[in-house]
Amino acid sequence: MATENPTPPHALGRQLNFATGRANALCEKWLEPHGLTLPQWVILSCLWREGELTVGQLSELIGTRLPATSRIIDRMVARGLLARKKDKRDGRVMVVKPTAKGNELNHLADFYERVNAALLEGFSAHDQEQAFALLARIEANARAALNKG
Amino acid sequence: MATENPTPPHALGRQLNFATGRANALCEKWLEPHGLTLPQWVILSCLWREGELTVGQLSELIGTRLPATSRIIDRMVARGLLARKKDKRDGRVMVVKPTAKGNELNHLADFYERVNAALLEGFSAHDQEQAFALLARIEANARAALNKG
Repeated sequence: MATENPTPPHALGRQLNFATGRANALCEKWLEPHGLTLPQWVILSCLWREGELTVGQLSELIGTRLPATSRIIDRMVARGLLARKKDKRDGRVMVVKPTAKGNELNHLADFYERVNAALLEGFSAHDQEQAFALLARIEANARAALNKG
Repeated sequence: MATENPTPPHALGRQLNFATGRANALCEKWLEPHGLTLPQWVILSCLWREGELTVGQLSELIGTRLPATSRIIDRMVARGLLARKKDKRDGRVMVVKPTAKGNELNHLADFYERVNAALLEGFSAHDQEQAFALLARIEANARAALNKG
């Protein structure tokens, strides 16, 4: 096992994945006692803000492809957390909304604030702004490079 | 479909996942013509630096659990990119190393630099340092909170 150059290269992709992986692991750990996975909380969080949404709108909002979003919703419907119903304004459109059982978890609506506080522990107000701003620029650059082909 | 409060909350987890998701999609797109997925490139990249490693060492380096790491390696062995062999210094230890076919992709060893350049487009030297430093602090905070229980 050679160790001539053991230091990992200064790869931003690596650093992004490690930070995001640990942040998601923390969310999963904190949500587990409430019987929720992180993707399930993200869906409920969108619906608590928006009331009801189509699967397509949820897919867009959470940044997950339609089939994966549908599978998460199927599981939440099976667990009685969400229900599918016809949109009031257009009966041909199906929307998803939390059930009474789903809404019992509404005390987790500001869960992300607890996560922010942990991840940004020791950050000055300026560093906090920088973290959001630099990540938004990285995301925009990745989107631009993806669209460039 | 209510739209009273359509703006997503200022959640760092969301921003981390969106930036990382787009960065990984860019990597997958750029690696696809070479017949590699991003996890496969990450494994080869570690082995090009280190020579040969055990599955446990690779799992540690890439930040992926042992079973998932084993599955990626199995697929790469089946494709003839990697080979399993006995460690020279201890015949009871199995290590993984690239085959000649795997090493033909060695021109991708500095692939991460191309990715860095795209993701950090328009960043000053100071902003680049900040991006790495703030992400490392977020990762360290997440690890500390995870260990706190």
